[in-house]
Amino acid sequence: MTTEHATDKTQIKRGRKRASYDIELAKAIIDDSLLCHIGQHLNGQTIVTPTCHWRDGDRLYWHGHIKARNVVGSDEQEVCINISQLDGLVLARSAFHHSVNYRSVTLFGKVQLVTDPEEKLIQLKKFIDKVSPHRWETLRPIHDKELMITSVAWIAIDEFSVKMRNAGVNDDEEDLNWPVWAGVMPIESQFLAPVVEKDCTNQTIPPTRPQALIGGKYKKES
Amino acid sequence: MTTEHATDKTQIKRGRKRASYDIELAKAIIDDSLLCHIGQHLNGQTIVTPTCHWRDGDRLYWHGHIKARNVVGSDEQEVCINISQLDGLVLARSAFHHSVNYRSVTLFGKVQLVTDPEEKLIQLKKFIDKVSPHRWETLRPIHDKELMITSVAWIAIDEFSVKMRNAGVNDDEEDLNWPVWAGVMPIESQFLAPVVEKDCTNQTIPPTRPQALIGGKYKKES
Ligand SMILES: Cc1cc2nc3c(=O)[nH]c(=O)nc-3n(C[C@H](O)[C@H](O)[C@H](O)COP(=O)(O)OP(=O)(O)OC[C@H]3O[C@@H](n4cnc5c(N)ncnc54)[C@H](O)[C@@H]3O)c2cc1C
Ligand SMILES: Cc1cc2nc3c(=O)[nH]c(=O)nc-3n(C[C@H](O)[C@H](O)[C@H](O)COP(=O)(O)OP(=O)(O)OC[C@H]3O[C@@H](n4cnc5c(N)ncnc54)[C@H](O)[C@@H]3O)c2cc1C
Ligand code: HEM
Ligand code: HEM
Repeated sequence: MTTEHATDKTQIKRGRKRASYDIELAKAIIDDSLLCHIGQHLNGQTIVTPTCHWRDGDRLYWHGHIKARNVVGSDEQEVCINISQLDGLVLARSAFHHSVNYRSVTLFGKVQLVTDPEEKLIQLKKFIDKVSPHRWETLRPIHDKELMITSVAWIAIDEFSVKMRNAGVNDDEEDLNWPVWAGVMPIESQFLAPVVEKDCTNQTIPPTRPQALIGGKYKKES
Repeated sequence: MTTEHATDKTQIKRGRKRASYDIELAKAIIDDSLLCHIGQHLNGQTIVTPTCHWRDGDRLYWHGHIKARNVVGSDEQEVCINISQLDGLVLARSAFHHSVNYRSVTLFGKVQLVTDPEEKLIQLKKFIDKVSPHRWETLRPIHDKELMITSVAWIAIDEFSVKMRNAGVNDDEEDLNWPVWAGVMPIESQFLAPVVEKDCTNQTIPPTRPQALIGGKYKKES
């Protein structure tokens, strides 16, 4: 792992060997996740808002009601966003060496709002197609009013850090014979069998379903 | 759902019908989760730190290195913490009505640090036993040095809000016949088969394993 793109903000001090500034790795973690946490400081108050995100090239996008705080008043505002996947429990022989396996990206940036309606549509299509590929074309087209009350925001993916742990137990040499089970309990998110709407006129489950989207793998319904 | 304990900070404006201020519900979501996102404003910079948490009564706890930013300098500092579980994708007939099902708690509070070493031990035991019940007693006891470099922090669970969505698709009446599949794709986190350490002298998988801990259900290894 390299540290070539670290800045004052993103230089990892605690746990440097878990750090990376590889943008492809950051993008992979972003794409594997649907949920980000947006931190802002608004009117003297720190707030953290869980929000769905998507990506287009080197930009991280999200949306909300034009009055939602994670988009309104955030234009040109600096935010800190974290995206984390919890991949497992690490159960050591010593309490101290317990840990979790994870993939995590932290981004800093100034929020920009998409003002062009055409560009808003293009981005919302990317969002829909992220959760279910090729779905956009099959949907009832968006009404102007719907588009008008929706804000789409983004930050550049240029000031970021990746921190990951993907390993076994790290106990001290002298504890290796301690007689307790030690190991990793991997965690995975999965989609369960889809629940169709009662009044749905089309019973064909979307042929392409999200797979790696939530850090987990596609699970066939039984 | 009631709004009897909302404050200026926690009054939900967007999506009031999804709001609750029921502390038992908040505690259940907290206990079902291992991962929280801590928002702070430190030296003019907003930061969001993913961190493991546990609960004791009406307090939310976390830990870190004495120099970690989510514990150091945060004594008596105001933080905003969000804990979210993503429970499903909601695929509507219209792009606009797409959504996700979720359970989410936002908490505000002044950070307190546990200074008494005895109390620190009590809390770290609760942490370990959260991820694997009754494990603490079986572990190599903590060294003083380990305890000295560890900070345990907490906030009171008294200024919080719960927001949840647990429902089907909410399409407009006139779109119900639109010929596309509509429904919910539930998401669940699960533990996969444990991976024991190669040099482990005890091959007995911990008899009591975390179950609802990650918002998912216990999955038998095959
Ligand atoms: C799922 C999960 C659970 C965790 N649980 C705990 C816990 O219980 N206790 C604990 O102490 N730590 C935990 N961590 C690690 C925690 O997120 C921080 O890395 C750690 O607290 C050090 O923070 P700091 O701000 O002091 O680090 P510093 O190294 O000083 O941070 C400097 C910069 O490094 C980068 N950075 C720091 N942390 C991360 C991160 N997680 N992801 C991406 N970039 C990062 C950011 O750009 C940050 O501005 C967890 C991480 C994850 C992903
Ligand atoms: C998994 C998940 C995904 C989401 N995705 C999106 C998205 O893509 N776009 C979007 O607009 N919104 C999304 N939301 C909702 C989002 O978190 C906010 O509720 C919404 O953006 C309105 O925020 P606000 O600050 O303007 O609300 P306000 O109602 O003004 O917030 C006031 C107070 O209400 C409480 N509150 C607000 N949101 C929450 C919450 N989520 N949990 C607990 N308390 C809360 C807090 O105490 C807050 O200080 C998502 C939520 C979850 C849990
Ligand atoms: C279930 C139990 C525990 C879990 C899941 C856990 C998890 C973690 C995680 C994820 C980190 C961050 C590591 C990183 O930066 O990648 C961490 C750091 C740390 N933990 Fe724990 N921990 C547990 C128990 C303990 C206990 C019991 C102690 C003390 C006796 C402890 C002391 C520390 C310290 C000091 C750090 C900072 C390490 C550093 O930055 O150098 N932990 N823990
Ligand atoms: C995959 C697609 C989408 C997902 C997963 C999604 C998810 C969400 C979520 C979780 C919320 C918060 C609701 C709450 O507060 O509980 C939200 C709000 C909102 N979304 Fe979407 N959305 C999607 C697509 C769209 C599209 C295409 C539009 C616009 C055409 C849109 C417009 C809005 C608006 C306006 C709000 C604010 C609602 C309000 O607060 O009154 N969304 N969305």
